[in-house]
Amino acid sequence: MPGVVQSLLWQILKLSMNHGGNIYRFARRLGCLPEQVLDFSANINPEQPVDLSCLQGVQLTPYADPDYGQLKQAINQRYPVPAGVDLELFNGASAAIFALLRGLQPKDLVLYTPLYGEYAHIAGELGCKVHNIDRFGQIMADIPQHSTVIFVNPSTPDGRLYELRDLLAKWQAADCTIIIDESFLDFSQADSVAEYTAHYAKLYLIKSLSKFYGCAGIRIGFILAVTAAIKELQRFEPAWKLSSLDMAYMRQALANTAFIERTRRQTAHLRDLLHHALQNSGLFDKIYPGQANFLLARLADGGSGYQLQEQLEPSRILIRVCDNFEGLDESHVRFAVKDELAIARLAHSFKNINK
Amino acid sequence: MPGVVQSLLWQILKLSMNHGGNIYRFARRLGCLPEQVLDFSANINPEQPVDLSCLQGVQLTPYADPDYGQLKQAINQRYPVPAGVDLELFNGASAAIFALLRGLQPKDLVLYTPLYGEYAHIAGELGCKVHNIDRFGQIMADIPQHSTVIFVNPSTPDGRLYELRDLLAKWQAADCTIIIDESFLDFSQADSVAEYTAHYAKLYLIKSLSKFYGCAGIRIGFILAVTAAIKELQRFEPAWKLSSLDMAYMRQALANTAFIERTRRQTAHLRDLLHHALQNSGLFDKIYPGQANFLLARLADGGSGYQLQEQLEPSRILIRVCDNFEGLDESHVRFAVKDELAIARLAHSFKNINK
Repeated sequence: MPGVVQSLLWQILKLSMNHGGNIYRFARRLGCLPEQVLDFSANINPEQPVDLSCLQGVQLTPYADPDYGQLKQAINQRYPVPAGVDLELFNGASAAIFALLRGLQPKDLVLYTPLYGEYAHIAGELGCKVHNIDRFGQIMADIPQHSTVIFVNPSTPDGRLYELRDLLAKWQAADCTIIIDESFLDFSQADSVAEYTAHYAKLYLIKSLSKFYGCAGIRIGFILAVTAAIKELQRFEPAWKLSSLDMAYMRQALANTAFIERTRRQTAHLRDLLHHALQNSGLFDKIYPGQANFLLARLADGGSGYQLQEQLEPSRILIRVCDNFEGLDESHVRFAVKDELAIARLAHSFKNINK
Repeated sequence: MPGVVQSLLWQILKLSMNHGGNIYRFARRLGCLPEQVLDFSANINPEQPVDLSCLQGVQLTPYADPDYGQLKQAINQRYPVPAGVDLELFNGASAAIFALLRGLQPKDLVLYTPLYGEYAHIAGELGCKVHNIDRFGQIMADIPQHSTVIFVNPSTPDGRLYELRDLLAKWQAADCTIIIDESFLDFSQADSVAEYTAHYAKLYLIKSLSKFYGCAGIRIGFILAVTAAIKELQRFEPAWKLSSLDMAYMRQALANTAFIERTRRQTAHLRDLLHHALQNSGLFDKIYPGQANFLLARLADGGSGYQLQEQLEPSRILIRVCDNFEGLDESHVRFAVKDELAIARLAHSFKNINK
């Protein structure tokens, strides 16, 4: 293929993959069904704790309990809420991020990068002054007094798990508002900062339930903070926003406690398999050590993730190029941990690539 | 019962019923299941166009299409979107109201009252200057230039259907931003203002799908406006917010076109039955003429809706006292149109009330 046409195709591919994980556009372009796409781009657990049969008997006619009583109880069983702390539910963690930043309207926003692009996007819309701090190089760098800091732990797109004690002390000393996103923490054994929320009134813990429970189609996430902070957030929230179907599903998912340990063990095992597959491909010169359900790898010789994406297309494999993560370029590619068969198919497809 | 105790009980009842329609608290207080409450307080169609079996095969693992392609197509089939106009989906109409007013940040807000209390609530949170105009007395009253007007058609809690031509001309002449809520319009044969949205860039049409399609547990509503206005709204919306289950349900509900005419005919018939039941009870001195799936009635001799609520409690019947609608007091009570059996039970309970 002539270089110019190839370059043009990559540009189109880049545009259409901008936010990553759009299996629908990818499938339309390939002329297949979305279910036929082998999606390594979205870091969603491929296993579920319950199936759709758990929805039998859900009443759709009435409004759901606006207090979300039963769901909050199920969450509290799984993630104990300290005394003096409350939670507010949202239609997923990204809705929670939007609502929280819209409410806080931070002047100075400190982002520990690389970081999920949605944070920088909303910061731009709100006109915040953004200060990027490179987690890899200078994690203890100085931050503006009274700023709002955002930290994802384990982080995306690399999955690194951080011990936050020193950072928390640093942020508190600077009187910061602290936002910790623990959407991937359940894949590890590490402790949550939930306990800290009771002791620092400007600490917000954000949590997605979609990743660990394998259900991006269910829109439920939450924010944990001291009761007064939650009350303030609720001022601009409508009385009803969560689907009764989603709530019934999530209540039962949370109740399946055997799923927790099984998922951790399985994810660790499959992450090792994925690591081997990436390493054996000979395509990458770095694979980042990760504790979540995905791995970040860097293509050797500054290779392009979009080119790799194109080479994997005949196998209907979708990957996540990470150039829209601050500090990373298109040689960085993220792979979700999927089941053995999927990893075997990926490894096989790597073999057919002309290096 | 001594007067003072009775009065105290009413006060407690008022507090617990403040937002109306909370069958969960009502059931807890009565010691029964929410399903056992005969809920006349929520104006939700008791009939559904589809059942839960329509969810078979929904994929929960992947993120839903962030473009909401299939759902938008189903909406467009049912409610044609004019050229130059677009729609944004929200987790129900009340989420849409919050997002729209938060985005518009109106200085002067004109509310045509009586009006659903959520509008005044969010106006208060946003610090808008609220101008109430009494629909019953002075509907063509002057309004401030460049203000934002909100009109629900048919209106709640009375169900009156308005011909809006003269009002639209008046609002446009005053260069107003116009918000029309048509959440109950489907129960009538009347035309939507959707066509107008293409001709006036500051007209927003809000629509709940829960009322007509009988599914308050499904959280999907939308706003229709010119494309530029929708793009502005989308700036502060997260990429994924709608449940995949809700979308699958609503797509199939919208596709059942036979349901539309059947529901209109049945609602008209049952509304007549409800009207007779209210009239024959001898409790009311006024029943407002309504074109939606509910009727507003005024208790004779300034009677209290909370007292009536208490008298209906042994029958597990929940009604909506309308004193938190601007301009109405607690003698005003709203009854949803329900099935024949429910209306018969209501009529029977009326007979047992000591007048």
